[in-house]
Amino acid sequence: MNAAPPLSAIDGPDAAPAGAAPRQPLLVTMGDAVGIGPECIVRAFARDALDDAIAIADLAVLRRAAAVAGLDLPLARIDKPADVREVPAGCLAVVQPQGLPEGLAALPWGAVDARAGAAAARCIEAAVALVLRGEAAAMVTAPVHKAALAAAGVPFPGHTEMLQALCAGAEGPPPVRMMLANDELRVVLVTIHQSLRTAIEALSFDAVLQTVRIAARAALQWGLEQPRIAVAGLNPHAGEGGLFGDEEIRIIGPAIEAARREGIDARGPFPPDTVFMRARDAAGHPGEFDLVVAMTHDQGLIPVKYLGVHDGVNVTLGLPLVRTSPDHGTAFDIAGRGLADPRSLEAAARQARRAVLSRVRTQGPG
Amino acid sequence: MNAAPPLSAIDGPDAAPAGAAPRQPLLVTMGDAVGIGPECIVRAFARDALDDAIAIADLAVLRRAAAVAGLDLPLARIDKPADVREVPAGCLAVVQPQGLPEGLAALPWGAVDARAGAAAARCIEAAVALVLRGEAAAMVTAPVHKAALAAAGVPFPGHTEMLQALCAGAEGPPPVRMMLANDELRVVLVTIHQSLRTAIEALSFDAVLQTVRIAARAALQWGLEQPRIAVAGLNPHAGEGGLFGDEEIRIIGPAIEAARREGIDARGPFPPDTVFMRARDAAGHPGEFDLVVAMTHDQGLIPVKYLGVHDGVNVTLGLPLVRTSPDHGTAFDIAGRGLADPRSLEAAARQARRAVLSRVRTQGPG
Repeated sequence: MNAAPPLSAIDGPDAAPAGAAPRQPLLVTMGDAVGIGPECIVRAFARDALDDAIAIADLAVLRRAAAVAGLDLPLARIDKPADVREVPAGCLAVVQPQGLPEGLAALPWGAVDARAGAAAARCIEAAVALVLRGEAAAMVTAPVHKAALAAAGVPFPGHTEMLQALCAGAEGPPPVRMMLANDELRVVLVTIHQSLRTAIEALSFDAVLQTVRIAARAALQWGLEQPRIAVAGLNPHAGEGGLFGDEEIRIIGPAIEAARREGIDARGPFPPDTVFMRARDAAGHPGEFDLVVAMTHDQGLIPVKYLGVHDGVNVTLGLPLVRTSPDHGTAFDIAGRGLADPRSLEAAARQARRAVLSRVRTQGPG
Repeated sequence: MNAAPPLSAIDGPDAAPAGAAPRQPLLVTMGDAVGIGPECIVRAFARDALDDAIAIADLAVLRRAAAVAGLDLPLARIDKPADVREVPAGCLAVVQPQGLPEGLAALPWGAVDARAGAAAARCIEAAVALVLRGEAAAMVTAPVHKAALAAAGVPFPGHTEMLQALCAGAEGPPPVRMMLANDELRVVLVTIHQSLRTAIEALSFDAVLQTVRIAARAALQWGLEQPRIAVAGLNPHAGEGGLFGDEEIRIIGPAIEAARREGIDARGPFPPDTVFMRARDAAGHPGEFDLVVAMTHDQGLIPVKYLGVHDGVNVTLGLPLVRTSPDHGTAFDIAGRGLADPRSLEAAARQARRAVLSRVRTQGPG
């Protein structure tokens, strides 16, 4: 992918530009206390994959997770992110937000609980406040459970809606889009969690154009000078000239044209069955595009997940802060059993660092 | 994939079971004379990938293709497939059907022509007759051009419909389904060339059940004793219990249950975004399923094509003969320029041999 470094290369020793301000820490929110989030955090830290990160979490919950993972991991409670500089290497720094419910570390694993939902929400609120105040660079969110949030009376079904509300300005919540990315493919989705039937109804000129705009703005922030954005069609063969559906002619094509008139290098609509293959950026196979705008959840997620889910990262585009998350849920079925795989959380941290680094490059240090 | 050998291993020296009848030849039909089909055939033969195959073609067209490809390839016209045993190694055997139009080798490359369409259809008819009479084992079809067939007055839009008609019995044309396969994934499609909107309308209990049945029967013929058939859902998260669409509850789930009552190991409906990853059978990643039934064209083709299109093969399931084809079209834009890539045709020949070999194993030689 043209100007930007590969995702896997960004946290190497040469990642920080010379003369840059000291790197600010990443925040990692705990997620649901009885899911696999806490265990993923301590495992990733023990694997040296979160060494500039601060957990926003309940200290006892992380202690229990370390025990489950069989790790002898020292934790250091700090009051504010800047204090992380006092914490010795190998010791995980934890900011424990005010007002967490009592007894979280005694809750049974893998069972929906209002206290776990409330604590997860509280950690997210605290992390957003710290990033927006400039005390941290970005946030990585361990998974929350929809039913636990609901049981706690949290008025949002998940991270995305909660982050939109916490970042709302005078014009209301900012429009956002979900990006799924791994080391070789980035996909931004026009529609997500709805039936395929209603997703087709929801496709509109505005929805497609706004997705292309959000994707282009994000890619510029990552340091891509002229991001090449492929837009998938909706129908087989991208409609074959109207023979297999007309959404490409009525909606997607005009939205691409409008984006191009704004100076965005958007192309398509391309046949869905080959556009992801063409965008794939791997050894011996340079990608033709920097990202693909997909019309539906599975059109975009099938190729991102095809080679495995461990490196997949979910990035919320359109927010005034950088937020990434692993591409899996709370996995209540395996929580507390020492089986959690931290690789997707690690990939999310890499992706968050990369986005932050690109901002430094684009805007200059400070 | 449990009992069956990997696709890449089937044409090795140990492929023919001891005591089997002499291997019958494959037929390879020419396809459109002014597309890349003839060039793919001569290139594949020169790469030793069609050494037990007979071209059903116009001799002069193949000669022109060899010249374009820069190959000094001897051709031997034979009258019937059995005569291939008299043809020396390194010489491509050709059966030229009666009644081909004159002057095919003088037609301009890459331009729709009724004569090319008529010749393509004639070669397919001849090949079907030879395979159904038992004179050849299977057929591999080089690509035809829809507009050329139409210009020639051929009443079928493509191979599939033509083969159904040529194989029709007392009950009419047999129901068929398209399978796309490569070395690590096999996908059978419930719906194909229609808009996503009408594909959703076309999903029915009968359509899904018939697809599962056709897939199971074909897999048994390949020698899989208890094929593991995964059925994808239609909606994100397979509908999440009805929250994102109810086709899984109304249609797909009941069809799976019905197939299971018939003794078929059908499972699902699975979330579309991970079922193909789970079925992927690659080094270090044993597939959980032998094939996946996909609801729509792109749901199935995106993962098959993600790692590249050169090894993709199109197999028509449900016919009383084995027919495979490369997963590309006539490529009029590059025809006659010496640029054709024969790898997908070669993969189609491997897949056809594999299917035939499995029949020998299942039914015994003879």
